[in-house]
Amino acid sequence: MAIIECIPNVSEGRRADVVDAIAAALRAVPGVRLLDHSSDASHNRSVFTMAGDAGPIKAAVLAMYERAVPAIDLRTHTGEHPRLGAIDVVPFVPIEGVTMAACVELAKDVGAEVASRFGVPVYLYEEASADPARRNLEDIRRGEFEGLAAKMASKGWTPDYGPAAPHPSAGASVIGARMPLIAYNINLNTDRLDVAKKIAAAIRHSSGGFRYVKAAGFELKDRGIVQVSMNLTNYEKTPMFRVFETVKREAERYGVSILESEIVGLIPSAALNSAAEYYLQIAGFKADQVLENKLRTSHD
Amino acid sequence: MAIIECIPNVSEGRRADVVDAIAAALRAVPGVRLLDHSSDASHNRSVFTMAGDAGPIKAAVLAMYERAVPAIDLRTHTGEHPRLGAIDVVPFVPIEGVTMAACVELAKDVGAEVASRFGVPVYLYEEASADPARRNLEDIRRGEFEGLAAKMASKGWTPDYGPAAPHPSAGASVIGARMPLIAYNINLNTDRLDVAKKIAAAIRHSSGGFRYVKAAGFELKDRGIVQVSMNLTNYEKTPMFRVFETVKREAERYGVSILESEIVGLIPSAALNSAAEYYLQIAGFKADQVLENKLRTSHD
Repeated sequence: MAIIECIPNVSEGRRADVVDAIAAALRAVPGVRLLDHSSDASHNRSVFTMAGDAGPIKAAVLAMYERAVPAIDLRTHTGEHPRLGAIDVVPFVPIEGVTMAACVELAKDVGAEVASRFGVPVYLYEEASADPARRNLEDIRRGEFEGLAAKMASKGWTPDYGPAAPHPSAGASVIGARMPLIAYNINLNTDRLDVAKKIAAAIRHSSGGFRYVKAAGFELKDRGIVQVSMNLTNYEKTPMFRVFETVKREAERYGVSILESEIVGLIPSAALNSAAEYYLQIAGFKADQVLENKLRTSHD
Repeated sequence: MAIIECIPNVSEGRRADVVDAIAAALRAVPGVRLLDHSSDASHNRSVFTMAGDAGPIKAAVLAMYERAVPAIDLRTHTGEHPRLGAIDVVPFVPIEGVTMAACVELAKDVGAEVASRFGVPVYLYEEASADPARRNLEDIRRGEFEGLAAKMASKGWTPDYGPAAPHPSAGASVIGARMPLIAYNINLNTDRLDVAKKIAAAIRHSSGGFRYVKAAGFELKDRGIVQVSMNLTNYEKTPMFRVFETVKREAERYGVSILESEIVGLIPSAALNSAAEYYLQIAGFKADQVLENKLRTSHD
Protein backbone atom coordinates (compact mmCIF):
# COMPACT_ATOMS: atom_id res chain seq x y z
CA MET A 1 0.00 0.00 0.00
CA ALA A 2 1.32 3.44 -0.95
CA ILE A 3 1.29 6.35 1.48
CA ILE A 4 0.50 9.74 -0.06
CA GLU A 5 0.19 12.78 2.20
CA CYS A 6 -2.25 15.55 1.22
CA ILE A 7 -2.37 18.94 2.98
CA PRO A 8 -5.32 21.02 1.70
CA ASN A 9 -5.35 24.70 2.67
CA VAL A 10 -8.92 25.98 2.92
CA SER A 11 -10.00 29.66 3.19
CA GLU A 12 -12.05 29.32 6.39
CA GLY A 13 -10.56 29.65 9.85
CA ARG A 14 -13.32 31.31 11.85
CA ARG A 15 -16.56 29.30 11.48
CA ALA A 16 -15.95 26.12 13.51
CA ASP A 17 -19.07 24.44 12.08
CA VAL A 18 -17.74 24.72 8.52
CA VAL A 19 -14.25 23.47 9.51
CA ASP A 20 -15.72 20.58 11.52
CA ALA A 21 -18.01 19.55 8.65
CA ILE A 22 -14.98 19.37 6.31
CA ALA A 23 -12.98 17.37 8.88
CA ALA A 24 -15.92 14.98 9.32
CA ALA A 25 -16.18 14.51 5.54
CA LEU A 26 -12.47 13.63 5.35
CA ARG A 27 -12.68 11.21 8.31
CA ALA A 28 -15.65 9.47 6.67
CA VAL A 29 -13.58 8.28 3.68
CA PRO A 30 -12.39 4.65 4.16
CA GLY A 31 -8.61 4.30 3.78
CA VAL A 32 -7.91 7.93 4.70
CA ARG A 33 -6.38 9.05 8.00
CA LEU A 34 -6.92 12.67 9.03
CA LEU A 35 -3.68 13.21 10.96
CA ASP A 36 -4.15 16.81 11.98
CA HIS A 37 -6.08 19.99 11.27
CA SER A 38 -5.61 23.52 12.58
CA SER A 39 -7.40 26.83 11.99
CA ASP A 40 -6.10 30.38 12.23
CA ALA A 41 -8.73 33.10 12.79
CA SER A 42 -6.54 36.04 11.78
CA HIS A 43 -5.51 34.22 8.60
CA ASN A 44 -9.10 32.96 8.29
CA ARG A 45 -7.60 29.73 6.98
CA SER A 46 -7.47 26.04 7.94
CA VAL A 47 -4.87 23.38 7.12
CA PHE A 48 -5.81 19.68 7.01
CA THR A 49 -3.20 16.90 7.00
CA MET A 50 -4.33 13.51 5.77
CA ALA A 51 -2.72 10.37 4.35
CA GLY A 52 -3.71 7.30 2.39
CA ASP A 53 -3.40 5.57 -0.97
CA ALA A 54 -4.21 7.40 -4.23
CA GLY A 55 -7.84 6.26 -4.55
CA PRO A 56 -8.99 7.15 -1.03
CA ILE A 57 -7.06 10.45 -1.03
CA LYS A 58 -8.73 11.47 -4.30
CA ALA A 59 -12.15 10.60 -2.85
CA ALA A 60 -11.37 12.68 0.26
CA VAL A 61 -10.34 15.76 -1.75
CA LEU A 62 -13.55 15.58 -3.80
CA ALA A 63 -15.61 15.16 -0.60
CA MET A 64 -13.87 18.27 0.75
CA TYR A 65 -14.89 20.29 -2.34
CA GLU A 66 -18.49 19.06 -1.90
CA ARG A 67 -18.57 20.66 1.56
CA ALA A 68 -16.32 23.68 1.05
CA VAL A 69 -17.51 25.12 -2.30
CA PRO A 70 -21.10 25.86 -1.17
CA ALA A 71 -19.97 26.98 2.32
CA ILE A 72 -17.18 29.46 1.50
CA ASP A 73 -17.65 32.71 -0.48
CA LEU A 74 -14.44 34.60 -1.24
CA ARG A 75 -16.43 37.72 -2.17
CA THR A 76 -16.97 38.27 1.55
CA HIS A 77 -13.84 36.49 2.84
CA THR A 78 -11.20 38.52 4.68
CA GLY A 79 -7.97 37.40 6.31
CA GLU A 80 -4.24 38.12 6.52
CA HIS A 81 -3.14 35.13 4.48
CA PRO A 82 -3.00 35.49 0.66
CA ARG A 83 -5.55 33.26 -1.14
CA LEU A 84 -7.24 32.95 -4.52
CA GLY A 85 -9.68 30.15 -3.82
CA ALA A 86 -12.13 28.72 -1.27
CA ILE A 87 -10.00 25.57 -1.51
CA ASP A 88 -6.79 27.50 -2.01
CA VAL A 89 -3.97 24.92 -2.29
CA VAL A 90 -3.95 21.11 -2.50
CA PRO A 91 -0.48 19.49 -2.50
CA PHE A 92 0.09 15.74 -2.89
CA VAL A 93 3.26 14.45 -1.23
CA PRO A 94 4.92 11.03 -1.82
CA ILE A 95 5.74 9.46 1.56
CA GLU A 96 6.27 5.77 0.91
CA GLY A 97 5.85 3.12 -1.78
CA VAL A 98 4.93 5.79 -4.32
CA THR A 99 6.88 7.92 -6.82
CA MET A 100 6.73 11.68 -7.36
CA ALA A 101 5.56 10.87 -10.93
CA ALA A 102 2.54 9.03 -9.48
CA CYS A 103 1.71 12.05 -7.28
CA VAL A 104 1.95 14.33 -10.33
CA GLU A 105 -0.52 12.05 -12.16
CA LEU A 106 -2.83 12.14 -9.12
CA ALA A 107 -2.69 15.97 -9.05
CA LYS A 108 -3.67 16.12 -12.75
CA ASP A 109 -6.43 13.54 -12.29
CA VAL A 110 -7.91 15.34 -9.27
CA GLY A 111 -7.47 18.76 -10.93
CA ALA A 112 -9.40 17.68 -14.03
CA GLU A 113 -12.24 16.23 -11.94
CA VAL A 114 -12.45 19.28 -9.64
CA ALA A 115 -12.79 21.50 -12.72
CA SER A 116 -15.44 19.35 -14.40
CA ARG A 117 -17.51 18.53 -11.28
CA PHE A 118 -17.39 21.88 -9.49
CA GLY A 119 -16.59 24.37 -12.25
CA VAL A 120 -13.56 25.58 -10.30
CA PRO A 121 -10.54 26.45 -12.53
CA VAL A 122 -7.34 24.66 -11.48
CA TYR A 123 -3.68 25.68 -11.79
CA LEU A 124 -1.09 22.90 -11.46
CA TYR A 125 2.02 23.87 -9.40
CA GLU A 126 5.43 22.63 -8.28
CA GLU A 127 6.31 19.20 -9.75
CA ALA A 128 2.92 18.97 -11.51
CA SER A 129 3.44 22.18 -13.48
CA ALA A 130 4.74 21.96 -17.06
CA ASP A 131 5.42 25.74 -17.15
CA PRO A 132 8.44 27.02 -15.15
CA ALA A 133 6.63 30.37 -14.72
CA ARG A 134 3.78 28.53 -12.99
CA ARG A 135 5.71 26.22 -10.67
CA ASN A 136 5.90 28.60 -7.73
CA LEU A 137 2.77 28.97 -5.58
CA GLU A 138 3.43 32.65 -4.82
CA ASP A 139 3.62 33.50 -8.54
CA ILE A 140 0.29 31.80 -9.23
CA ARG A 141 -1.39 33.40 -6.21
CA ARG A 142 -0.08 36.93 -6.81
CA GLY A 143 -3.12 39.28 -7.18
CA GLU A 144 -5.21 36.93 -5.03
CA PHE A 145 -8.95 36.39 -5.51
CA GLU A 146 -9.61 40.10 -6.03
CA GLY A 147 -7.26 40.22 -9.01
CA LEU A 148 -8.04 36.75 -10.33
CA ALA A 149 -10.53 37.60 -13.12
CA ALA A 150 -8.09 40.03 -14.72
CA LYS A 151 -5.12 37.67 -14.25
CA MET A 152 -6.96 34.69 -15.80
CA ALA A 153 -7.85 36.80 -18.85
CA SER A 154 -4.21 37.81 -19.33
CA LYS A 155 -1.61 36.03 -21.48
CA GLY A 156 -0.01 32.95 -19.94
CA TRP A 157 -2.59 32.52 -17.18
CA THR A 158 -5.14 30.24 -18.82
CA PRO A 159 -5.77 27.57 -16.13
CA ASP A 160 -4.66 23.95 -16.66
CA TYR A 161 -8.25 22.76 -16.17
CA GLY A 162 -11.70 24.37 -16.17
CA PRO A 163 -13.10 27.70 -17.28
CA ALA A 164 -10.83 30.67 -18.08
CA ALA A 165 -12.73 32.74 -15.50
CA PRO A 166 -12.94 32.41 -11.69
CA HIS A 167 -15.72 30.47 -10.01
CA PRO A 168 -17.93 33.31 -8.69
CA SER A 169 -17.63 32.36 -5.00
CA ALA A 170 -14.84 29.74 -4.90
CA GLY A 171 -12.27 31.47 -7.17
CA ALA A 172 -9.65 28.97 -8.34
CA SER A 173 -7.53 26.18 -6.83
CA VAL A 174 -3.81 25.48 -6.99
CA ILE A 175 -3.23 21.71 -7.06
CA GLY A 176 0.11 19.96 -7.40
CA ALA A 177 2.79 17.60 -6.11
CA ARG A 178 5.85 18.31 -3.99
CA MET A 179 8.30 16.56 -1.69
CA PRO A 180 7.56 16.54 2.04
CA LEU A 181 8.74 19.68 3.79
CA ILE A 182 10.80 19.25 6.95
CA ALA A 183 10.81 22.11 9.46
CA TYR A 184 14.25 21.79 11.07
CA ASN A 185 15.93 24.20 13.51
CA ILE A 186 19.48 24.23 14.84
CA ASN A 187 20.11 26.12 18.09
CA LEU A 188 23.56 27.62 18.69
CA ASN A 189 25.46 28.00 21.98
CA THR A 190 25.57 31.78 21.63
CA ASP A 191 23.44 34.94 21.73
CA ARG A 192 25.16 36.36 18.63
CA LEU A 193 22.33 36.89 16.12
CA ASP A 194 24.86 37.92 13.44
CA VAL A 195 26.33 34.40 13.55
CA ALA A 196 22.91 32.74 13.07
CA LYS A 197 22.16 35.10 10.17
CA LYS A 198 25.54 34.48 8.51
CA ILE A 199 25.13 30.69 8.81
CA ALA A 200 21.55 30.86 7.46
CA ALA A 201 22.83 32.88 4.49
CA ALA A 202 25.60 30.33 3.90
CA ILE A 203 23.27 27.33 3.64
CA ARG A 204 20.11 28.69 1.98
CA HIS A 205 19.52 28.38 -1.75
CA SER A 206 18.56 32.04 -2.27
CA SER A 207 22.01 33.25 -1.26
CA GLY A 208 24.16 30.50 -2.79
CA GLY A 209 23.66 27.58 -0.38
CA PHE A 210 22.00 24.21 -0.81
CA ARG A 211 19.31 23.99 -3.46
CA TYR A 212 16.52 22.68 -1.21
CA VAL A 213 17.13 24.78 1.92
CA LYS A 214 15.25 27.88 3.05
CA ALA A 215 16.83 29.40 6.18
CA ALA A 216 16.80 32.45 8.46
CA GLY A 217 18.56 33.41 11.70
CA PHE A 218 16.47 34.21 14.79
CA GLU A 219 17.00 35.17 18.41
CA LEU A 220 15.47 32.98 21.16
CA LYS A 221 15.47 35.86 23.67
CA ASP A 222 13.99 33.88 26.57
CA ARG A 223 16.82 31.33 26.33
CA GLY A 224 19.55 33.82 25.43
CA ILE A 225 20.55 31.83 22.34
CA VAL A 226 20.13 32.07 18.58
CA GLN A 227 18.58 29.69 16.06
CA VAL A 228 19.11 28.80 12.42
CA SER A 229 15.53 28.05 11.37
CA MET A 230 15.14 25.98 8.20
CA ASN A 231 12.69 24.45 5.78
CA LEU A 232 14.15 21.45 3.96
CA THR A 233 12.10 21.12 0.79
CA ASN A 234 13.72 17.96 -0.62
CA TYR A 235 15.42 15.72 1.95
CA GLU A 236 16.51 13.24 -0.75
CA LYS A 237 18.51 15.75 -2.77
CA THR A 238 19.60 17.93 0.16
CA PRO A 239 19.82 15.48 3.10
CA MET A 240 19.63 16.61 6.73
CA PHE A 241 23.07 15.29 7.65
CA ARG A 242 24.77 17.43 4.99
CA VAL A 243 22.98 20.55 6.19
CA PHE A 244 23.78 19.73 9.84
CA GLU A 245 27.48 19.11 9.15
CA THR A 246 27.73 22.35 7.17
CA VAL A 247 26.09 24.38 9.94
CA LYS A 248 28.47 22.69 12.43
CA ARG A 249 31.56 23.67 10.41
CA GLU A 250 30.34 27.22 9.82
CA ALA A 251 29.59 27.60 13.55
CA GLU A 252 33.11 26.46 14.47
CA ARG A 253 34.49 29.16 12.22
CA TYR A 254 32.89 31.75 14.52
CA GLY A 255 34.00 29.94 17.67
CA VAL A 256 30.44 28.79 18.28
CA SER A 257 28.99 25.29 18.73
CA ILE A 258 25.66 23.55 18.11
CA LEU A 259 23.59 23.26 21.29
CA GLU A 260 20.86 21.06 19.80
CA SER A 261 18.60 20.70 16.81
CA GLU A 262 14.83 20.22 16.67
CA ILE A 263 12.33 18.80 14.22
CA VAL A 264 9.06 20.74 14.18
CA GLY A 265 6.05 18.59 13.37
CA LEU A 266 6.24 15.44 11.29
CA ILE A 267 9.16 13.88 9.42
CA PRO A 268 9.20 10.88 7.04
CA SER A 269 11.22 8.01 8.54
CA ALA A 270 13.30 7.88 5.33
CA ALA A 271 14.75 11.32 6.21
CA LEU A 272 15.94 10.03 9.60
CA ASN A 273 17.12 6.71 8.18
CA SER A 274 19.36 8.46 5.67
CA ALA A 275 21.13 10.20 8.56
CA ALA A 276 21.63 6.87 10.34
CA GLU A 277 22.93 5.32 7.09
CA TYR A 278 25.41 8.17 6.63
CA TYR A 279 26.84 8.32 10.15
CA LEU A 280 26.89 4.55 10.70
CA GLN A 281 28.33 4.07 7.18
CA ILE A 282 25.66 1.46 6.45
CA ALA A 283 26.23 -0.11 3.03
CA GLY A 284 23.47 -1.56 0.82
CA PHE A 285 20.69 -0.62 3.20
CA LYS A 286 17.17 -1.21 1.85
CA ALA A 287 14.02 0.49 3.15
CA ASP A 288 12.26 -2.86 3.51
CA GLN A 289 14.85 -3.87 6.13
CA VAL A 290 12.99 -1.51 8.46
CA LEU A 291 10.60 -3.86 10.22
CA GLU A 292 7.70 -1.39 10.17
CA ASN A 293 8.12 -0.85 6.40
CA LYS A 294 8.24 -4.60 5.85
CA LEU A 295 5.00 -4.85 7.83
CA ARG A 296 3.27 -2.40 5.54
CA THR A 297 4.62 -3.92 2.34
CA SER A 298 4.31 -7.61 3.23
CA HIS A 299 1.30 -9.34 1.70
CA ASP A 300 2.02 -12.86 2.94
CA MET B 1 -2.47 -0.81 17.35
CA ALA B 2 0.55 -2.45 18.96
CA ILE B 3 3.16 -4.33 16.92
CA ILE B 4 4.53 -7.48 18.56
CA GLU B 5 6.97 -9.66 16.64
CA CYS B 6 6.96 -13.42 17.24
CA ILE B 7 9.65 -15.76 15.87
CA PRO B 8 8.73 -19.41 16.54
CA ASN B 9 11.50 -21.99 15.98
CA VAL B 10 10.01 -25.34 14.96
CA SER B 11 11.86 -28.68 14.81
CA GLU B 12 11.04 -29.52 11.18
CA GLY B 13 13.20 -28.35 8.26
CA ARG B 14 12.95 -31.24 5.80
CA ARG B 15 9.28 -32.02 5.10
CA ALA B 16 8.04 -29.09 3.00
CA ASP B 17 4.39 -30.18 3.38
CA VAL B 18 4.57 -29.85 7.18
CA VAL B 19 6.34 -26.45 7.01
CA ASP B 20 3.89 -25.16 4.39
CA ALA B 21 0.88 -26.32 6.45
CA ILE B 22 2.21 -24.35 9.45
CA ALA B 23 2.88 -21.26 7.29
CA ALA B 24 -0.65 -21.50 5.86
CA ALA B 25 -2.12 -21.75 9.36
CA LEU B 26 -0.26 -18.60 10.42
CA ARG B 27 -1.29 -16.68 7.27
CA ALA B 28 -4.92 -17.64 7.89
CA VAL B 29 -5.10 -15.67 11.16
CA PRO B 30 -6.66 -12.19 10.64
CA GLY B 31 -4.42 -9.39 11.94
CA VAL B 32 -1.22 -11.43 11.63
CA ARG B 33 1.45 -10.84 8.98
CA LEU B 34 3.82 -13.71 8.22
CA LEU B 35 6.91 -11.67 7.27
CA ASP B 36 9.31 -14.49 6.53
CA HIS B 37 9.99 -18.19 7.05
CA SER B 38 13.06 -20.25 6.29
CA SER B 39 13.95 -23.92 6.74
CA ASP B 40 17.33 -25.58 7.21
CA ALA B 41 17.53 -29.28 6.27
CA SER B 42 20.79 -30.03 8.14
CA HIS B 43 19.43 -28.31 11.26
CA ASN B 44 16.05 -29.91 10.47
CA ARG B 45 14.51 -26.70 11.81
CA SER B 46 12.33 -23.83 10.52
CA VAL B 47 12.07 -20.25 11.71
CA PHE B 48 8.86 -18.24 11.18
CA THR B 49 8.74 -14.43 11.58
CA MET B 50 5.32 -12.89 12.11
CA ALA B 51 3.90 -9.68 13.56
CA GLY B 52 0.63 -8.33 14.86
CA ASP B 53 -1.22 -7.22 17.98
CA ALA B 54 -1.37 -9.46 21.09
CA GLY B 55 -4.71 -11.17 20.35
CA PRO B 56 -3.97 -12.21 16.76
CA ILE B 57 -0.39 -13.27 17.62
CA LYS B 58 -1.67 -15.51 20.43
CA ALA B 59 -4.23 -17.06 18.06
CA ALA B 60 -1.47 -17.69 15.49
CA VAL B 61 0.83 -19.42 18.00
CA LEU B 62 -2.01 -21.71 19.11
CA ALA B 63 -2.88 -22.49 15.47
CA MET B 64 0.78 -23.40 14.96
CA TYR B 65 0.67 -25.87 17.87
CA GLU B 66 -2.52 -27.41 16.38
CA ARG B 67 -0.58 -28.25 13.22
CA ALA B 68 2.91 -28.93 14.59
CA VAL B 69 2.22 -31.14 17.65
CA PRO B 70 0.56 -34.02 15.71
CA ALA B 71 3.01 -33.67 12.77
CA ILE B 72 6.40 -33.64 14.54
CA ASP B 73 7.78 -36.51 16.64
CA LEU B 74 11.06 -35.75 18.41
CA ARG B 75 11.60 -39.47 19.13
CA THR B 76 12.58 -39.85 15.48
CA HIS B 77 13.81 -36.27 14.85
CA THR B 78 17.48 -35.75 13.99
CA GLY B 79 19.34 -32.54 13.16
CA GLU B 80 22.43 -30.50 13.99
CA HIS B 81 20.58 -27.80 15.92
CA PRO B 82 19.95 -28.37 19.64
CA ARG B 83 16.23 -28.70 20.49
CA LEU B 84 14.00 -29.99 23.27
CA GLY B 85 10.60 -29.58 21.66
CA ALA B 86 8.62 -29.93 18.43
CA ILE B 87 7.84 -26.24 18.89
CA ASP B 88 11.22 -25.49 20.41
CA VAL B 89 11.30 -21.73 21.13
CA VAL B 90 8.64 -18.99 20.94
CA PRO B 91 9.91 -15.44 21.69
CA PHE B 92 7.62 -12.39 21.80
CA VAL B 93 9.33 -9.11 20.91
CA PRO B 94 7.96 -5.57 21.52
CA ILE B 95 8.33 -3.53 18.33
CA GLU B 96 6.01 -0.57 18.69
CA GLY B 97 3.21 0.78 20.88
CA VAL B 98 3.75 -2.05 23.38
CA THR B 99 5.89 -2.51 26.52
CA MET B 100 8.19 -5.40 27.40
CA ALA B 101 5.93 -5.99 30.42
CA ALA B 102 3.00 -6.59 28.06
CA CYS B 103 5.06 -9.09 26.05
CA VAL B 104 5.99 -10.90 29.29
CA GLU B 105 2.28 -11.15 30.16
CA LEU B 106 1.55 -12.45 26.65
CA ALA B 107 4.29 -15.11 27.02
CA LYS B 108 2.77 -16.29 30.33
CA ASP B 109 -0.77 -16.28 28.91
CA VAL B 110 0.25 -18.27 25.82
CA GLY B 111 2.46 -20.60 27.88
CA ALA B 112 -0.39 -21.48 30.24
CA GLU B 113 -2.78 -22.15 27.35
CA VAL B 114 -0.25 -24.25 25.41
CA ALA B 115 0.25 -26.43 28.50
CA SER B 116 -3.46 -26.87 29.22
CA ARG B 117 -4.62 -27.36 25.60
CA PHE B 118 -1.78 -29.50 24.24
CA GLY B 119 -0.25 -31.04 27.37
CA VAL B 120 3.15 -29.62 26.41
CA PRO B 121 5.22 -28.41 29.41
CA VAL B 122 6.45 -24.84 29.06
CA TYR B 123 9.56 -23.09 30.40
CA LEU B 124 9.51 -19.28 30.47
CA TYR B 125 12.81 -17.63 29.42
CA GLU B 126 14.59 -14.27 29.09
CA GLU B 127 12.45 -11.36 30.36
CA ALA B 128 9.53 -13.69 31.14
CA SER B 129 11.58 -15.87 33.52
CA ALA B 130 11.40 -15.20 37.26
CA ASP B 131 14.41 -17.49 37.91
CA PRO B 132 17.88 -16.14 36.89
CA ALA B 133 19.05 -19.72 36.36
CA ARG B 134 16.29 -20.18 33.78
CA ARG B 135 16.62 -16.93 31.83
CA ASN B 136 19.13 -18.21 29.30
CA LEU B 137 17.81 -20.40 26.45
CA GLU B 138 20.99 -22.50 26.27
CA ASP B 139 20.74 -23.39 29.98
CA ILE B 140 17.11 -24.51 29.61
CA ARG B 141 17.83 -26.49 26.44
CA ARG B 142 20.99 -28.22 27.71
CA GLY B 143 20.45 -32.00 27.55
CA GLU B 144 17.98 -31.54 24.70
CA PHE B 145 14.94 -33.76 24.12
CA GLU B 146 16.88 -36.94 24.84
CA GLY B 147 17.80 -35.75 28.35
CA LEU B 148 14.56 -33.90 29.03
CA ALA B 149 12.72 -36.53 31.16
CA ALA B 150 15.64 -36.76 33.58
CA LYS B 151 16.15 -32.99 33.64
CA MET B 152 12.47 -32.27 34.33
CA ALA B 153 12.52 -34.71 37.26
CA SER B 154 15.57 -33.02 38.76
CA LYS B 155 15.57 -30.19 41.32
CA GLY B 156 14.95 -26.70 39.92
CA TRP B 157 13.58 -27.86 36.56
CA THR B 158 9.85 -28.13 37.25
CA PRO B 159 8.31 -26.35 34.23
CA ASP B 160 6.46 -23.04 34.65
CA TYR B 161 3.31 -24.59 33.12
CA GLY B 162 2.06 -28.09 32.39
CA PRO B 163 3.09 -31.59 33.44
CA ALA B 164 6.48 -32.26 35.12
CA ALA B 165 7.28 -34.77 32.35
CA PRO B 166 7.90 -34.26 28.62
CA HIS B 167 5.10 -34.60 26.08
CA PRO B 168 5.90 -38.02 24.54
CA SER B 169 6.40 -36.74 20.98
CA ALA B 170 6.53 -32.92 21.34
CA GLY B 171 8.87 -32.64 24.35
CA ALA B 172 8.65 -29.18 25.90
CA SER B 173 8.56 -25.56 24.70
CA VAL B 174 10.58 -22.51 25.75
CA ILE B 175 8.37 -19.42 25.58
CA GLY B 176 9.35 -15.91 26.58
CA ALA B 177 9.89 -12.24 25.80
CA ARG B 178 13.02 -10.43 24.63
CA MET B 179 14.09 -7.26 22.86
CA PRO B 180 14.52 -7.36 19.09
CA LEU B 181 17.91 -8.68 18.06
CA ILE B 182 19.87 -6.65 15.51
CA ALA B 183 22.47 -8.47 13.40
CA TYR B 184 25.04 -5.75 12.73
CA ASN B 185 28.46 -6.12 11.07
CA ILE B 186 31.27 -3.59 10.72
CA ASN B 187 33.83 -4.22 7.97
CA LEU B 188 37.36 -2.90 8.42
CA ASN B 189 39.78 -1.58 5.81
CA THR B 190 42.32 -4.29 6.57
CA ASP B 191 43.01 -8.01 6.25
CA ARG B 192 44.35 -8.22 9.83
CA LEU B 193 42.10 -10.77 11.56
CA ASP B 194 43.84 -10.09 14.89
CA VAL B 195 42.52 -6.52 14.80
CA ALA B 196 38.92 -7.67 14.19
CA LYS B 197 39.22 -10.18 17.03
CA LYS B 198 40.71 -7.60 19.44
CA ILE B 199 37.95 -5.11 18.66
CA ALA B 200 35.25 -7.80 19.04
CA ALA B 201 36.73 -8.70 22.44
CA ALA B 202 36.75 -5.03 23.45
CA ILE B 203 33.06 -4.43 22.78
CA ARG B 204 31.37 -7.73 23.70
CA HIS B 205 29.79 -8.30 27.10
CA SER B 206 31.45 -11.67 27.72
CA SER B 207 34.92 -10.10 27.78
CA GLY B 208 34.13 -6.80 29.51
CA GLY B 209 32.44 -4.77 26.77
CA PHE B 210 28.90 -3.47 26.39
CA ARG B 211 26.21 -5.42 28.22
CA TYR B 212 23.99 -6.13 25.19
CA VAL B 213 26.65 -6.91 22.57
CA LYS B 214 27.75 -10.33 21.32
CA ALA B 215 30.68 -10.05 18.89
CA ALA B 216 33.31 -12.05 17.02
CA GLY B 217 36.02 -11.25 14.46
CA PHE B 218 35.92 -12.91 11.03
CA GLU B 219 37.88 -12.89 7.79
CA LEU B 220 36.04 -12.04 4.54
CA LYS B 221 38.62 -13.89 2.43
CA ASP B 222 37.01 -13.15 -0.96
CA ARG B 223 37.22 -9.40 -0.27
CA GLY B 224 40.52 -9.44 1.55
CA ILE B 225 39.08 -7.64 4.58
CA VAL B 226 37.98 -8.50 8.12
CA GLN B 227 34.66 -8.06 9.90
CA VAL B 228 33.48 -7.42 13.44
CA SER B 229 30.22 -9.40 13.43
CA MET B 230 27.73 -8.49 16.16
CA ASN B 231 24.38 -9.27 17.67
CA LEU B 232 22.89 -6.28 19.49
CA THR B 233 20.42 -7.75 21.97
CA ASN B 234 19.02 -4.50 23.40
CA TYR B 235 19.35 -1.46 21.13
CA GLU B 236 17.72 0.80 23.75
CA LYS B 237 20.27 0.12 26.49
CA THR B 238 23.26 -0.43 24.18
CA PRO B 239 22.51 1.80 21.15
CA MET B 240 24.09 1.23 17.73
CA PHE B 241 25.81 4.61 17.59
CA ARG B 242 27.72 3.93 20.83
CA VAL B 243 28.92 0.57 19.53
CA PHE B 244 29.86 2.07 16.15
CA GLU B 245 31.82 4.96 17.70
CA THR B 246 33.67 2.57 20.02
CA VAL B 247 34.64 0.27 17.14
CA LYS B 248 35.79 3.36 15.19
CA ARG B 249 38.06 4.52 18.03
CA GLU B 250 39.44 1.04 18.65
CA ALA B 251 40.16 0.64 14.92
CA GLU B 252 42.06 3.96 14.84
CA ARG B 253 44.24 2.68 17.64
CA TYR B 254 45.50 -0.04 15.28
CA GLY B 255 45.86 2.37 12.36
CA VAL B 256 42.77 0.86 10.74
CA SER B 257 39.51 2.49 9.56
CA ILE B 258 35.90 1.43 9.11
CA LEU B 259 35.12 0.56 5.49
CA GLU B 260 31.36 0.15 5.98
CA SER B 261 28.79 -1.42 8.24
CA GLU B 262 25.84 -3.62 7.35
CA ILE B 263 22.52 -4.54 8.89
CA VAL B 264 21.58 -8.17 8.29
CA GLY B 265 17.84 -8.72 8.03
CA LEU B 266 15.29 -6.53 9.77
CA ILE B 267 15.76 -3.61 12.16
CA PRO B 268 13.13 -1.63 14.12
CA SER B 269 12.96 1.97 12.92
CA ALA B 270 13.47 3.15 16.53
CA ALA B 271 17.02 1.73 16.42
CA LEU B 272 17.86 3.82 13.33
CA ASN B 273 16.05 6.89 14.65
CA SER B 274 18.12 6.87 17.84
CA ALA B 275 21.28 7.10 15.70
CA ALA B 276 19.82 10.05 13.78
CA GLU B 277 18.84 11.71 17.06
CA TYR B 278 22.34 11.28 18.44
CA TYR B 279 24.35 12.50 15.45
CA LEU B 280 21.98 15.35 14.54
CA GLN B 281 21.73 16.29 18.25
CA ILE B 282 17.93 16.31 17.99
CA ALA B 283 16.36 17.46 21.28
CA GLY B 284 12.90 16.44 22.51
CA PHE B 285 12.24 14.10 19.61
CA LYS B 286 9.06 12.01 19.92
CA ALA B 287 8.40 8.78 18.05
CA ASP B 288 5.01 10.05 16.88
CA GLN B 289 6.80 12.82 14.94
CA VAL B 290 7.72 10.09 12.46
CA LEU B 291 4.97 10.35 9.91
CA GLU B 292 4.63 6.60 9.46
CA ASN B 293 4.30 6.07 13.23
CA LYS B 294 1.69 8.82 13.41
CA LEU B 295 -0.17 7.02 10.62
CA ARG B 296 -0.31 3.80 12.62
CA THR B 297 -1.25 5.47 15.90
CA SER B 298 -3.76 8.01 14.59
CA HIS B 299 -7.39 7.03 15.03
CA ASP B 300 -8.95 10.21 13.69
